[in-house]
Amino acid sequence: MKTEKIGGQTIRFARPASIVCGAATCGKMEGEGPLADSFDLIDKDTSFGEKNWERAESAMLRAAVDIAMQKAGIGFSGLDYIFGGDLLNQCIGSAFAVKDSAVPYFGLYGACSTMAEAMTLGAMVVDGGYAKTVCALTSSHFCSSERQFRTPLPYGCPRTPTAQRTATAAGAVILSGEGNGPFITCVTSGRILDAGIKDASNMGAAMAPAALDTLCTHFVETGRAPDYYDLVVTGDLGCVGSDILVELAMKKGFDLRERHRDCGMMIFDRKKQNVCAGGSGCGCGASVLAGYILSQMEKGEINRVLFAATGAIMSTTSAMQGESILGICHALSLENGR
Amino acid sequence: MKTEKIGGQTIRFARPASIVCGAATCGKMEGEGPLADSFDLIDKDTSFGEKNWERAESAMLRAAVDIAMQKAGIGFSGLDYIFGGDLLNQCIGSAFAVKDSAVPYFGLYGACSTMAEAMTLGAMVVDGGYAKTVCALTSSHFCSSERQFRTPLPYGCPRTPTAQRTATAAGAVILSGEGNGPFITCVTSGRILDAGIKDASNMGAAMAPAALDTLCTHFVETGRAPDYYDLVVTGDLGCVGSDILVELAMKKGFDLRERHRDCGMMIFDRKKQNVCAGGSGCGCGASVLAGYILSQMEKGEINRVLFAATGAIMSTTSAMQGESILGICHALSLENGR
Repeated sequence: MKTEKIGGQTIRFARPASIVCGAATCGKMEGEGPLADSFDLIDKDTSFGEKNWERAESAMLRAAVDIAMQKAGIGFSGLDYIFGGDLLNQCIGSAFAVKDSAVPYFGLYGACSTMAEAMTLGAMVVDGGYAKTVCALTSSHFCSSERQFRTPLPYGCPRTPTAQRTATAAGAVILSGEGNGPFITCVTSGRILDAGIKDASNMGAAMAPAALDTLCTHFVETGRAPDYYDLVVTGDLGCVGSDILVELAMKKGFDLRERHRDCGMMIFDRKKQNVCAGGSGCGCGASVLAGYILSQMEKGEINRVLFAATGAIMSTTSAMQGESILGICHALSLENGR
Repeated sequence: MKTEKIGGQTIRFARPASIVCGAATCGKMEGEGPLADSFDLIDKDTSFGEKNWERAESAMLRAAVDIAMQKAGIGFSGLDYIFGGDLLNQCIGSAFAVKDSAVPYFGLYGACSTMAEAMTLGAMVVDGGYAKTVCALTSSHFCSSERQFRTPLPYGCPRTPTAQRTATAAGAVILSGEGNGPFITCVTSGRILDAGIKDASNMGAAMAPAALDTLCTHFVETGRAPDYYDLVVTGDLGCVGSDILVELAMKKGFDLRERHRDCGMMIFDRKKQNVCAGGSGCGCGASVLAGYILSQMEKGEINRVLFAATGAIMSTTSAMQGESILGICHALSLENGR
């Protein structure tokens, strides 16, 4: 089989990258949530021993990278490239996390779709023979995000029901041309969608149309129905965006009800944890993938996953200038066995 | 010939992407500089008809993309992927520029190295057969950068001699598996370097060690000396960073004096234009490449160029927290003829 482009947005790989291992780290609240057992490291005070939240985010991400490399039995010298990004201005969270790695670095900005973007490009460079082993990584931290995007934490601002809570979490995965899977068998790369949503407290609604676009394109271009997968998992639409996605997909002829879950709703217990519409942030999808989903795939509980991380592209400036929140979604097929 | 990795950071392409065409747009001051003739569009009041500077930046970049596509005789439907990024928080400059393109989009953050990063990834996906045609693009705008990174323009703050002026400029290039060149024959991808520089008014010093690292690695891994190239052009080190680079390279045994030029020193006339140490910004290197350098290559005035765009990774938060400014540099060999 040759690597080939199927339709306008999907690539099917001839030499699919294997996800050798992943590692997920998180803060206190995520570590008290339903997926607690799937994290490799939970920091009890969410500071990761650092003196400010930005450093804490980098330390949390670095811990995920270190654990992932340890599982893979390699150090930084065993990596050909790192693909990483995060939500902080100028992506300092990820750059500072690996600043002493001495590994060629491609900085990305895909908002909360970053993990899927990083893994897509990582899978391409592995399949293409440009690299044997790469690391895809991303993070988000509730406290660094709140003060950057919203209000300083001590203000104690209330949140609207449609708002999502940025997860304090990081994920790193090691991709390789050798390994026993799960394999990234194909990718459907997303385009920017402007649904006209301007409410920065309703990211789910802004991202749902992008998720719909990429997922429907994936199903059409691959000829697969949702039930080809054991799980169709979106990055972090939360409950508002998830409802929109499932409803709109139904109108397009794709019934997601049985297969769809959302990382933003998996990482927290919405009833007990006061997180409004659910979790969000680059680290939400990344840690749920690198922790829970990969461990379920390893056990064989699930064998085919469509991982579709969604991002909301906006800044405080664009929001205050009245611009829409742009959505994007990149999807990857993860399969036990090629 | 097979595409192969040479050493740790360099890829030599078997099916090198052709730079089908490029387009460069800029503001008033850049349009009064030494490279005025090489810009495709100069906006006389630097607003590009928009009501705020962020919109102006997106409009300037969109104009570059539109002109590049026009030269290539294609529309957005002729592009498989867009690789883009910029300096604005959450990279809104580039995302909003192409939000209605409906082309799969990979958002990047490489600070002022973004054009080289975008072209590197673009060259890989073309060589790897994942795409026939892609667009690499980036921009920067003096006014949107000043208010984000420094002080509001009406304050009229004086600048230190080591400071660089963010160029108001944008560049877009179309890469294709078909075409007559110039070709991206090989790439040397950079790693993050922390030289310990913390002075946000001296980006040149922060980036020079990264430029040194990537250029020396390129020369060693390819076995080429600087004089293999007609031009070794750095993104935007300005005069301070350029001096550091040339001096340190000499100590490493590479004499750059004859071949090196810096886009930050090419885009402005430092004597007449009051730009302190020179120009900077993603759009500086991108527009000098997409305008001046490509036109010189087209005329056959120069035939081999090593384009090494440098980025300084920092945010106002990291700077105020006392963190170093991280440097990165990605280099590409551009050659008339494979």
